Amino acid sequence: MLDKERSHRIMQELEKEGLSQILITDPVAIFYLTGRWIHPGERFLGLYLGKDRESVLFINTLFQFSEEIGLRKVYYSDTDNIYPLLAHAVDSSEKLAVDKILPARFLLPMMEAGLASGYANGSPAVDQTRSIKDALEIEIMRESSRINDVCMEDFKKLIKTGITELEAAEQMLSIYKSHGASAYSFDPIVAFGMNAADPHHMPDHTILQEGDCVLFDVGGVYENYCSDMTRTYFWKKEPDELQARIYNLVKEANERAEEMCAPGIIISDIDKCARDIITDAGFGPYFTHRLGHFIGIEDHEYGDVSLTNQNRECPGITHSIEPGIYYPKGRIGVRIEDLVLITEDGHEVLNHMPKEIEVLE
Amino acid sequence: MLDKERSHRIMQELEKEGLSQILITDPVAIFYLTGRWIHPGERFLGLYLGKDRESVLFINTLFQFSEEIGLRKVYYSDTDNIYPLLAHAVDSSEKLAVDKILPARFLLPMMEAGLASGYANGSPAVDQTRSIKDALEIEIMRESSRINDVCMEDFKKLIKTGITELEAAEQMLSIYKSHGASAYSFDPIVAFGMNAADPHHMPDHTILQEGDCVLFDVGGVYENYCSDMTRTYFWKKEPDELQARIYNLVKEANERAEEMCAPGIIISDIDKCARDIITDAGFGPYFTHRLGHFIGIEDHEYGDVSLTNQNRECPGITHSIEPGIYYPKGRIGVRIEDLVLITEDGHEVLNHMPKEIEVLE
Repeated sequence: MLDKERSHRIMQELEKEGLSQILITDPVAIFYLTGRWIHPGERFLGLYLGKDRESVLFINTLFQFSEEIGLRKVYYSDTDNIYPLLAHAVDSSEKLAVDKILPARFLLPMMEAGLASGYANGSPAVDQTRSIKDALEIEIMRESSRINDVCMEDFKKLIKTGITELEAAEQMLSIYKSHGASAYSFDPIVAFGMNAADPHHMPDHTILQEGDCVLFDVGGVYENYCSDMTRTYFWKKEPDELQARIYNLVKEANERAEEMCAPGIIISDIDKCARDIITDAGFGPYFTHRLGHFIGIEDHEYGDVSLTNQNRECPGITHSIEPGIYYPKGRIGVRIEDLVLITEDGHEVLNHMPKEIEVLE
Repeated sequence: MLDKERSHRIMQELEKEGLSQILITDPVAIFYLTGRWIHPGERFLGLYLGKDRESVLFINTLFQFSEEIGLRKVYYSDTDNIYPLLAHAVDSSEKLAVDKILPARFLLPMMEAGLASGYANGSPAVDQTRSIKDALEIEIMRESSRINDVCMEDFKKLIKTGITELEAAEQMLSIYKSHGASAYSFDPIVAFGMNAADPHHMPDHTILQEGDCVLFDVGGVYENYCSDMTRTYFWKKEPDELQARIYNLVKEANERAEEMCAPGIIISDIDKCARDIITDAGFGPYFTHRLGHFIGIEDHEYGDVSLTNQNRECPGITHSIEPGIYYPKGRIGVRIEDLVLITEDGHEVLNHMPKEIEVLE
């Protein structure tokens, strides 16, 4: 069913930009608004929302469905011209907001058909709305991360003498499914020893060695919402002095950044807090990425926790906090990542796995 | 290196539409023109071609490379405004052709920056050019399909008592690699018995049963060009009378359609030829898709062999011919698919695997 509250919030965001109507074509945003996944492939799919106008879903007959979704469905076939159909819904005397991803093969004929008096990128309004999770979404995100915690306990048990990264990674999907997740949020990262010092490493045939660090960056999908967590362990041997120092720096950066998370805080200040801790200790050049990213239906949603994001935290935002140090000279890479929800009066860390140094045996 | 012949052909196609300049952003088309794969993710990547103007590649500094590619490279960073850079290259007094996939987040600011006097979909010119393979491409396509033939021989040997569709499918990538292909053209389809009667079936845990038909729809990538072939076998038992009739109808449709392929033939007539054979025998409703699709760097390229394609065949076109009958009541689905190259005086079938009824043991 068309979510009245969510569509209303999008219209409010549009109004701030002086816009009164939008044609949403991103299937993720259409799922967000209707609860229904439609994968149109190359075909046109559009959800029209207009101030004081009827909401309409334009959909190819190939994807027909009978359920009511609280808005008018307009079907078209492959031989139909969709632009006159769109013209019925759209107010041609006003500007039309469209998705940032709307391809030119649809936008140019819309313009030629004189659908609206002008066109604007309406994605900021949708992205802004999606970034503030509502009560239902928060409940699901919490459960999604709870499942990720439980799975991480199982992933630790996969680690055995002689195992390769790929052998560990390949067992993770069935573990997610056994705990109620439906899929990966993203392909899991398993990195041993030197491989962990490459933040973009993908699991390969590297065999686990005594003294290796063991990095898991993993997430599952529960009821369409993503989890995402990283922990770094050690295998059979306590980390040496340098490795322990690096580990505890990352842990401190993670914890101090998380403590800062609260409504009104400028987001870039959180990145700066974590980055300063690592930089002041001399490892700045080895923390090579932003501190975090927004997350929800998609693992990476619009919005990040970086030095360039000057926006303020608001209740309902969920993002990762994931500082890292990738230090080949120390044969180590450490990243510690949780998901954090901004609440009315502070924050809630959605992951609960311990962050102390832990040696797996 | 910028392929002079291919870019010249694109400019000629544009000229027929009254256009004199194009900004190509599809990484596949940029590979086609330069021999270089650049995967820009969400970042802008553009190749500008203009009549009597300098060709320019616009590329993010993240994807910098030192090799000469026969055109000027203009780098931009994440903090640069790309539109003034584009304005230097583009003739603002003329219309600009853009890709059909160019997203609104780039097209709308281009329009605002007044880059050109108007905008048009330039993809037909690129697609038309790409659909006519040149001598080098033909040589590679031939070898790609030769490899597919050799692999099909190996795939037949995978079929053993107790095997599941997924177990067979999972072994195919290493077989492709052992014969010189680098990847799949698409995830292989393996369908046993009733599953073959669903043309969209994906391999699952279904176990092979005596008397099942065994459908393989498979392709590999060789030097960036795709192969694609389907064969349908039987396991341990000759097909019954109805199954044999269905099989031979599909085979006849495949062979008669292939025989028609020649320059000047209207493409829809080829679909009609195959469809009439199946329809006249009473199985029309069970042949539920178009007869074929164009193929090259991508498994599905622009252009299809369907009742709606009124264009004529030209030398250099490569497409599939893949009639099928999906008949659950007969516990059978049969598809027989080859790739066909249109030559100066007829056609060349790029696959050479036999099409007679074959019972695997």
